[in-house]
Amino acid sequence: MQSVTLNDTQAIAIGAGILGTGGGGSTYLNRLRLDNELRASGKSLPIIRADDVPDDALVCAVGGMGAPTVSNEKLQEGREIMRAVRAMEAHLRQPMHAIIIGEIGGGNALGPLVAALQLGLPAVDGDSMGRAFPELQMDTFMIYGVAPSPFALADTQGNIAIFPRIGSAKQAEDFARSLTIEMGGSAALVMPVMSGAELKRSIIRDTLSLAKRIGENVLDCRARSIEPAETIATLCKGRILFTGKITDVERRTVQGFARGQLKIAPFHKGKPPPVLTGGPRGVGSTQVLQIDFQNENLIARLGDDVLCAVPDLITIVSLDDGEAIGTESLRYGLRVAVLGMPAPKELKSPEALAVVGPRTFGYDIDFCPLPGDLL
Amino acid sequence: MQSVTLNDTQAIAIGAGILGTGGGGSTYLNRLRLDNELRASGKSLPIIRADDVPDDALVCAVGGMGAPTVSNEKLQEGREIMRAVRAMEAHLRQPMHAIIIGEIGGGNALGPLVAALQLGLPAVDGDSMGRAFPELQMDTFMIYGVAPSPFALADTQGNIAIFPRIGSAKQAEDFARSLTIEMGGSAALVMPVMSGAELKRSIIRDTLSLAKRIGENVLDCRARSIEPAETIATLCKGRILFTGKITDVERRTVQGFARGQLKIAPFHKGKPPPVLTGGPRGVGSTQVLQIDFQNENLIARLGDDVLCAVPDLITIVSLDDGEAIGTESLRYGLRVAVLGMPAPKELKSPEALAVVGPRTFGYDIDFCPLPGDLL
Repeated sequence: MQSVTLNDTQAIAIGAGILGTGGGGSTYLNRLRLDNELRASGKSLPIIRADDVPDDALVCAVGGMGAPTVSNEKLQEGREIMRAVRAMEAHLRQPMHAIIIGEIGGGNALGPLVAALQLGLPAVDGDSMGRAFPELQMDTFMIYGVAPSPFALADTQGNIAIFPRIGSAKQAEDFARSLTIEMGGSAALVMPVMSGAELKRSIIRDTLSLAKRIGENVLDCRARSIEPAETIATLCKGRILFTGKITDVERRTVQGFARGQLKIAPFHKGKPPPVLTGGPRGVGSTQVLQIDFQNENLIARLGDDVLCAVPDLITIVSLDDGEAIGTESLRYGLRVAVLGMPAPKELKSPEALAVVGPRTFGYDIDFCPLPGDLL
Repeated sequence: MQSVTLNDTQAIAIGAGILGTGGGGSTYLNRLRLDNELRASGKSLPIIRADDVPDDALVCAVGGMGAPTVSNEKLQEGREIMRAVRAMEAHLRQPMHAIIIGEIGGGNALGPLVAALQLGLPAVDGDSMGRAFPELQMDTFMIYGVAPSPFALADTQGNIAIFPRIGSAKQAEDFARSLTIEMGGSAALVMPVMSGAELKRSIIRDTLSLAKRIGENVLDCRARSIEPAETIATLCKGRILFTGKITDVERRTVQGFARGQLKIAPFHKGKPPPVLTGGPRGVGSTQVLQIDFQNENLIARLGDDVLCAVPDLITIVSLDDGEAIGTESLRYGLRVAVLGMPAPKELKSPEALAVVGPRTFGYDIDFCPLPGDLL
């Protein structure tokens, strides 16, 4: 992948939605922004490989912070990330070499591309989650030792905060979350700032390409009037965990997060539908599937059986067209497939599981990974 | 006043307590810190006049932010302000010329002196409140047009935040308050950063000297076994509003503030005591005095009669020794005098009253000033 053009944005948006596991924000608004920016610039956005970044170059990961329930309704001014990057460059008296996508899931895959165009910088093919996660310490940069400071936050009003010294990534999360709430529930984030050498040590490579490939496959299914869930599952080395109808959604926006729980009932009560993919316990069940989320889907359970748990990816897609349904858009009656996809290997090391495993989110279970790796 | 030595700190602490109107934090801990720092340095702290600061020199006001109920129990590491100033100098790539006391009331009069010693900088005789106020926009720098950014916050753990761009002083207050709460309820603040010209346009002069003079008078009364309230009132051009015993205190630490209400009953129910000073309605009353506070005492009322309201100073002192009683130290049974003192003239202009008048604090009354000016 050498560049992003107007022809690529729909596919990237669909793929990023699917990698978003319910979070990362809606792709709709950020895709409109990206299209506008590409049209206005009349150019494509150059995409470079992480390994092309010189060791001593300065790069920064960027994205939007806050609850997707908020960022869908409270529109951005449009240059928040750009302003935060410029403020960081001014603070450090050093220009950035490239823009890094903080999380490839949801709208957060696209916002950094908009900012890169505005800044006249290339973006790197990769990110630090391979999905979306609710908190700042939950990325491979933090897990593999990049310093959390300096970091910057910017809001829609032009206000900017820079944290030149922070003790830990969790501390950064606490400060940034509290400020994000004060900024109205959504903010632009520049974190971390790092060298090319640090980037190469800790980034998950090629996730932008993966998002695009997923989206292209979904578009192909749509063109051929095929339900895309099976294709997505295969491409992402995962499986369909469940198909059914959403029967209950409980969602609150608390402490800056969209938290809640949903229930999905199988289509044919008492008469199991045909199993769609190789043998998972969920598909064909007569039980109701329950999914808990904190911005992102965290755990999928059938009664006491855990079908899939974080950091493996749980994504809910519309059965008809394979469009990912963000946790902020869940509602009664939607006919969905629940996909389970194995996490990238970088999220499954012991040090990663200490930060993004089920116990971090309050579930007293060991992580039983789906077979394989997303990447 | 040319310098602060070990011989001055007790008087300054007493005077700052009295100017604190219940807030600004306890003077006890910061006086210990100041004494330690003076002893360790073996030098006195140079005090300069605002008019001695060159127009183009850089200065910054500093202080502690948070509820005094917190800062009394959660001890500082001791170099928070110094670290915040150093971080601001590094951010701006420019050294400070002198340290400005943000608020002369309470412990916040002394913290900046400790930091000035640590930084090897002189402090200026004056401040931006002539008392203490609960919120950041309530100072003469903000009222008279100094920019609220950049500002810096630092916590006990070594974490630092710099806000290079902020839309308004109230916005700075909201961000800083929210971060202060996240920092554990108290933090060191550097705000505003300004030129000597801006300083001279907006500072309230000579308030450090006033604090020292008040303290020296109180110490003199103590030496002569005289109740100091009358002396303080005269020196501050004010009056004794009430004397009596605290009979009720309701106090909560909410949203980063110590908020509440207290009641003071007259000593001789049904038999008015002799009037101590010229004719205020409160002294000699058989009614109970009620005072509302938000970190600082805001309004003193006898039934529907307002005896004194913000920005005029309401300070509660121990009847015996004239020691100011902070809102965090109020308790049942204390025998007290309530002093009403006119605000400095800088707080009584229309633009100042729009920010520090009774209506700002939710009281639907016009400001009826006590006669005269504190300074």
